[in-house]
Parts: sequence; structure tokens; C-alpha cells
Amino acid sequence: MQRYFSKEKNGQEFQLSGDDLYHITRVMRMKDHEEIEVVYEEQVFLCEIRLGEDVKVVIKTILPKVEKREQEIVLVIPLLKEQKMDYILQKATELGVTKIIPVVMERSIIRLEPSKENKKMERWTKICKEASEQSKRVKIPIITEVKHFSDLACMEGVKFVCSTREKENNLKKFVEKHQNYGTIIIVVGPEGGLSEKEEKELIKMGFECVSLGERIMRVETVPLFVLSILNFLNME
Amino acid sequence: MQRYFSKEKNGQEFQLSGDDLYHITRVMRMKDHEEIEVVYEEQVFLCEIRLGEDVKVVIKTILPKVEKREQEIVLVIPLLKEQKMDYILQKATELGVTKIIPVVMERSIIRLEPSKENKKMERWTKICKEASEQSKRVKIPIITEVKHFSDLACMEGVKFVCSTREKENNLKKFVEKHQNYGTIIIVVGPEGGLSEKEEKELIKMGFECVSLGERIMRVETVPLFVLSILNFLNME
Repeated sequence: MQRYFSKEKNGQEFQLSGDDLYHITRVMRMKDHEEIEVVYEEQVFLCEIRLGEDVKVVIKTILPKVEKREQEIVLVIPLLKEQKMDYILQKATELGVTKIIPVVMERSIIRLEPSKENKKMERWTKICKEASEQSKRVKIPIITEVKHFSDLACMEGVKFVCSTREKENNLKKFVEKHQNYGTIIIVVGPEGGLSEKEEKELIKMGFECVSLGERIMRVETVPLFVLSILNFLNME
Repeated sequence: MQRYFSKEKNGQEFQLSGDDLYHITRVMRMKDHEEIEVVYEEQVFLCEIRLGEDVKVVIKTILPKVEKREQEIVLVIPLLKEQKMDYILQKATELGVTKIIPVVMERSIIRLEPSKENKKMERWTKICKEASEQSKRVKIPIITEVKHFSDLACMEGVKFVCSTREKENNLKKFVEKHQNYGTIIIVVGPEGGLSEKEEKELIKMGFECVSLGERIMRVETVPLFVLSILNFLNME
């Protein structure tokens, strides 16, 4: 069943965004009384569409909450070309990331003009919202403003940086050392990797350098690789 | 260093494809005597470029073989829209797939006209070759002709199908049961999944139904998810 997120609830009805209403009426061509799921404050509601001059979304019932041990998975990524960025946001959302922090990195060729940041943020948020709907999440990942390296210092949790310099400490050893964490923070470098200076800085901040094995992966593959493994480790 | 695959060796020189020569001279704008790696019969050679009327690729030395336990990882996928297909081929190559078998599946909306198959195959092979160069593989994954379900019957190895119907037997349980295999065969269904009939057929052929957890992933995410985990399990 199609799922949408709503920020506004009036009694037994939800308000959906114009985009969502367009999707319901024009893309999905839903019929009167057709059912959808609406997520509101991390609760899933079974609703039905009422077509009229304006489309109404009427609550039928609240669906039982599927309680799950919610870990915080924070992904720190460089600014990348639009396509790679979009791709990471979509896939990381599918794979359960809870927070994405774009960070300005030395070797990242992309520079984001402050004037353009709002527009970008809108685009990124939309991608994560749609991927959350598609993958039936009840929480849309948070994308923070573009940050600087130094901002990572205050972050608490199990922390590692994907490093091609590191040869000993691989991801397997790392996760064996750090089990049942509440928050895990993963730093992924740009093409060409993080500079030694940046890695040293992260180590000072308490990040561990971790190897992902001998494979040479494109930067946009790395987050998926790590998130897939975290999902695997959480299987019961 | 840039890596290329060659099929032709004349004494101390390699022949490269027109595409590769174009890449060397026009895209990379390499200089005379610049070094590249050439893979020939799964051996890596350090070579240098000699610019002239025609570009020569001269062997300097053979690089030591990095012996690794080579598992056969076979990926069976449906025919998908071009973009998703290309994407799976590229990423699966990065993540070490050794063979890809496109199979006609009941719910796959894509039908490939025999007349177009050669052209497609060319395109797919090119994607895998380039991804192999980029990710420094010594073996380009094999893409077989488009097959039918019944052709999977004769395949030997550890075999599973990614199933959303399966609730008990998840990937973690599966890999715990089947360790140090020589060949692993992974079947991924199309959007909407495999039909029950198809799953039953696979079970008859000795495939196990395996759940990837509760996450709802797009079809093109599934192969990456599984291959990432297989890489992780092979980390020492």
C-alpha cells in the first residue's frame, strides 16, 4: 500500500503536501475510498482517500506500532556531484540511516555556495522523504546543514572513518569490538580519500580508522556497503 | 594507476581496444612513457605508453599475483529497465561478482527482443569491463546470455533466493549454515518479487528461500546488500 508522511492532522483527517496529492491523483490515479498509509509523528494510520473538489484523507484506524530497537546510524559524507549525492541519500534511507551530515572536506571538488544551500537542502530532504515512503519507514532521516570538520568533535557514539590507509583494523574486527552500541557514526571520504591531516584530526576526536577490505569501491558505494553490513549484524 | 584489460599480447607489447586508446590519449591525456597497468590472462603487467603515430603499450614488468581464495559468486537477476540494470552490473562488479545471469521472470515488465540481445550484451559487457578496471579487478565478470528459469536447475553450489515471503530463514542464519562454500548462487526477483510458482520451482531445484530482514529495498539495492555482506564475511 502507498505510504505518505503528513505533518498536519485535523481531527480524523490528514493534510498532505501538494506533491503527495498530485502523486495520489495524477501518478497513482487512486479511486474514491482507496486506502493509503499515512505516517504522522512516527505512527502509521490506515486512511482512505475521498475524492471531491479537494482530496480528503480520512483516518480509518491506527496501525499497531512495530517496536524495534532503534539505533542511531549517522552518516558523514563529503559534498559530491548531484547524482552521487542523490544516490547516497536514497540508498542510505532505504538501508536505515537516521542522520546524514554533509561535511566540507579537503579533497571534495564540490563547493556549495551558501546561496544555493537552501535549494539543495530542499532537494535532499525530498529525496529522503520519498525513499522513506517507498521503503515504509516511519522516520525520515535528518539531513543537517553542511558542517565543517571541527563540528564532528562533539559527536558521541561508536565512531569510525572508512580508510584506505588502514590495513589492520577492518570493519569485521571493529564491529566485534563494538557490539550493541546506541549510536554509530560513519565517516566516508571523497574521491581520493580523506587527507592525512583530516584522518589525524578524526583520530584525535576519537574516531577509529577502519578498512573495508581490499576492494576498491566508488565513493557512492561505500555507505551502502557499510549500512548493508550493519543491517546484517542486526538480524536476529 | 589506470588499469586496462587486454586480449592481445605481441612479444613485449599489448594491443588495447580503440576505446581504451581513446581513453588514454584523449580522456586521460597521458604523456609519453607514462605508466599504466594492463591485465592479460588474469596477470597484471606494469606497462608504459609510447606515443607516436600509433600508441604503443610496452611491458616493463609483471606485477606479483595477489593470490586470493577465489569464490564464485553468481548473481541471477531479472531483466530490468536499462538504468537499474546498468547500475546493478556496475556495483556488483565493484563488489566482486564473478558471473551474472539475466533470467526471464514472470513479473519482470521488461522483455528483450532476441534481435536486440547482442546490442544489450555488448553494452553490459562494456559496463562490467570498465567497472573491473576502475575497481582493479583481474577478472571481468561473465555475463551469460538471457536464460530461462528451467536453466537454473543444473547449477551446482550453495543456492538461495531472496524472498519477502520467507520470515524465518534470514541471511544470517543461512550463512551460518553454509560456510566456506566454493560457489554461491543468489537469485534476486523483479519488482513485485518472484511468483509463488517460481519460488516453488527454485525450491525444487535446491534453492533456499532467504529473508533479508524487514527492510523494503528497491530491487537494484538487493544485489549490493547481499554482495556487501558476502565481502564482510570474507574479511579476515
